[in-house]
Amino acid sequence: MSDFPKNLLQSPSGFPELLPNEAIAQQKVIDVIRKHYERAGFVPIETPLVEREEVLTAKSEGEIGTQMYGLRLMNPAKDSPTDTKDLVLRYDHTVPMARFVAAHQREITFPFRRFAIGPVFRGERPREGRYRQFIQADIDVIGDGILDNLHDAEIVSVIANIFTELSIGDFTIRIGNRKLLQGILSSTGINDSQIAEALLVIDHMEKVSAEDTIHALVRCGMTETTAKDVITTLSDSRDSDEQLASLKERSLDELYKQGVGEIEALINGLRALGVSERHFTIDLSIARGLAYYTGNVFETRLDNHADIGSIASGGRYDDLASTFIDKRLPGVGISIGVSRILPRLIKTGLLSADISTTAPVIITTALPLEAHGAIYLRQAALLRAAEISTEVYLTDRALGKELEYANKRGFIIALITGEQELAKGTIIVRDLRSGNQVEVHEQALVETVRSMMGA
Amino acid sequence: MSDFPKNLLQSPSGFPELLPNEAIAQQKVIDVIRKHYERAGFVPIETPLVEREEVLTAKSEGEIGTQMYGLRLMNPAKDSPTDTKDLVLRYDHTVPMARFVAAHQREITFPFRRFAIGPVFRGERPREGRYRQFIQADIDVIGDGILDNLHDAEIVSVIANIFTELSIGDFTIRIGNRKLLQGILSSTGINDSQIAEALLVIDHMEKVSAEDTIHALVRCGMTETTAKDVITTLSDSRDSDEQLASLKERSLDELYKQGVGEIEALINGLRALGVSERHFTIDLSIARGLAYYTGNVFETRLDNHADIGSIASGGRYDDLASTFIDKRLPGVGISIGVSRILPRLIKTGLLSADISTTAPVIITTALPLEAHGAIYLRQAALLRAAEISTEVYLTDRALGKELEYANKRGFIIALITGEQELAKGTIIVRDLRSGNQVEVHEQALVETVRSMMGA
Repeated sequence: MSDFPKNLLQSPSGFPELLPNEAIAQQKVIDVIRKHYERAGFVPIETPLVEREEVLTAKSEGEIGTQMYGLRLMNPAKDSPTDTKDLVLRYDHTVPMARFVAAHQREITFPFRRFAIGPVFRGERPREGRYRQFIQADIDVIGDGILDNLHDAEIVSVIANIFTELSIGDFTIRIGNRKLLQGILSSTGINDSQIAEALLVIDHMEKVSAEDTIHALVRCGMTETTAKDVITTLSDSRDSDEQLASLKERSLDELYKQGVGEIEALINGLRALGVSERHFTIDLSIARGLAYYTGNVFETRLDNHADIGSIASGGRYDDLASTFIDKRLPGVGISIGVSRILPRLIKTGLLSADISTTAPVIITTALPLEAHGAIYLRQAALLRAAEISTEVYLTDRALGKELEYANKRGFIIALITGEQELAKGTIIVRDLRSGNQVEVHEQALVETVRSMMGA
Repeated sequence: MSDFPKNLLQSPSGFPELLPNEAIAQQKVIDVIRKHYERAGFVPIETPLVEREEVLTAKSEGEIGTQMYGLRLMNPAKDSPTDTKDLVLRYDHTVPMARFVAAHQREITFPFRRFAIGPVFRGERPREGRYRQFIQADIDVIGDGILDNLHDAEIVSVIANIFTELSIGDFTIRIGNRKLLQGILSSTGINDSQIAEALLVIDHMEKVSAEDTIHALVRCGMTETTAKDVITTLSDSRDSDEQLASLKERSLDELYKQGVGEIEALINGLRALGVSERHFTIDLSIARGLAYYTGNVFETRLDNHADIGSIASGGRYDDLASTFIDKRLPGVGISIGVSRILPRLIKTGLLSADISTTAPVIITTALPLEAHGAIYLRQAALLRAAEISTEVYLTDRALGKELEYANKRGFIIALITGEQELAKGTIIVRDLRSGNQVEVHEQALVETVRSMMGA
């Protein structure tokens, strides 16, 4: 008798695991993301899940501090490696990329267009939509000294193509700009540390009432009238051209003008790339907190599921790696929170997790396997060689039970070879959706299955 | 000036990282593996990289003891999760699968055919071919109570299909059987603990001289003559049918007979599945150490690179999860050591890592981007919409430099639009392999690129 405690059989909280139907759905999402990253000529790199503590703390930002996981050897031996105390798990893909670019600057070519899809770790208390291990799918371009704003447009267009293909409903990529926002805040007369505070207020303005935002901005040093003006400006929801025209009319500082130019270049780029106007909008309230962004910033919302929050966020940064090397490497990137959105998308029905098989075809085994197993294996080999994914039911059970299993798992086509078919040298090919079936000889098997699958 | 120590910029030893060309090569290997796993109807599951210590120690075997990594929070806060001390990194895919099957037995269907491709961790001293983080690609079938031996054949055929498609040279899957081996050893009159020792000796016999093996077997309790006989039996290198005939002639214990039957069923299955005789052989010396295997066991060698060792190993086990639940779940599986073989395959030239782009096409930008960037982006959008992966060179540089970059990265086709083409409304499509080029209008772009790629 196993006396292993039942409650320990579940994976630890915050470390979710996926059943086959969920893992298949996640794989589809990741495949679509990777396809579009590659289609735009981005290349993968692989950095380890483990980094040195010095590396991750050299560039880490505020909140990560208490959430970083270190490694330890549970039972070190005399000859165990001694550097374990310095090893930590990565909490994002950005810092490892910065180290990678610094370490391999002579082996890579700039502009360096890389993607990274994989798990990251944060030791926070698990709650709805927050995990301790989760998959992020990042795409970034890193320039050597300079990086044209058209890269921002390319990155945003890739994201738009991904969410379009995923068919998860209407979505909007919201575009803000840190320079422009800073320019507006600076024009109100508040000082730099007040501006930093005000950025955080604006970052949260969607989650609280307009009154609360006004009060918070007043606490940052603005008059109430100015605070209201700022909110009006940042809440502009007209179309991109109208907003751009208004923004260009205002004559604020140089930073502001640069910011307007960056948004304009981005939007012109999106149009050249054929991104539908439905999929992007200027939203000046997008600030992305205290992060290292210095230009255009992005967030992506599902129009009918605002509660899910941003499903893809990012922006432009001036300086990726100066912590590590004496080089100015500007970049722009976006990260898709795969693990964060997947269960929500499945729950809301936006993403199907109905299928628990990777194969459309199942070969049932009505005859005893010991004597006749080879027949079924040969059928499987024929279909697989024709690139048709096929499972063989290699257990002796009643045919009815096997067909029950086939339906439960979601197969489309079942092959049946019983006594009669064996005698005639035929195979029954049954469409499990309609119940229709045909009986064919082996040489017609592949063609029959293929045409039935297409039906 | 950055004062970050240069030596810390490399990833920690034993945690290798991959440049784009290497990551692309690895991705190709993983894609081929996944394709064949899916083609045989295996399904993915995803278990976290982190498990509870109780789970991994409940089933762990000898050598893992000192190599298991635990987690710790580097700077815990007051509200940090308190279970961190119980969390460890997985060291293989098998124990997490056992827990998963035990936890989700009512949500999955048996025979459960699952694959898992991903990193595992072992805190051992890094050396050639041994890493502290490495990717394993596992495929297993788990039965509920019973599991026909034809599953062994299916698993082996999937592995044969993978290495055939990878074109990494001639390979042989070596098939042994634990029952048969145990029967032979038992027939020499040594006792159970001596048999266990002898299994380890046989596991190493390839690495040492025949004399050393004889001496070691004598230390296990055999006479020298018996030891020599055993070695002769286990070193039989005739073809499968001849070996099988000899094995069937011997009349040893029941266990031995079962073992012979298991190998025979496997080989008949492989033939039904169309696996070439070139790709498998009976090698009775395959023992797989002290692992939990109880029936057929497998190792895979590259015929011309024996030094690489086994690139895919596994076998049949009687009991997957009885540590966790009161159920007998027999299984059979194989694991491909992706990280272990990849650098060796690249180094020996068996696998190409020449390509550092995911896109065949690059759009060069001879005209200033500020004024004419949209032209190039539109070309990119056209090609990408036609599923042709395309990079745009979005930096203002001399055309010559851009073409130099294109050659360095390994693009196949370059588009060029300069002043003259702009005036005529044309695009030059250049084959970078041959230097041949044609000049076309935008509406012929996709077709021209496609036919040049095929050329």
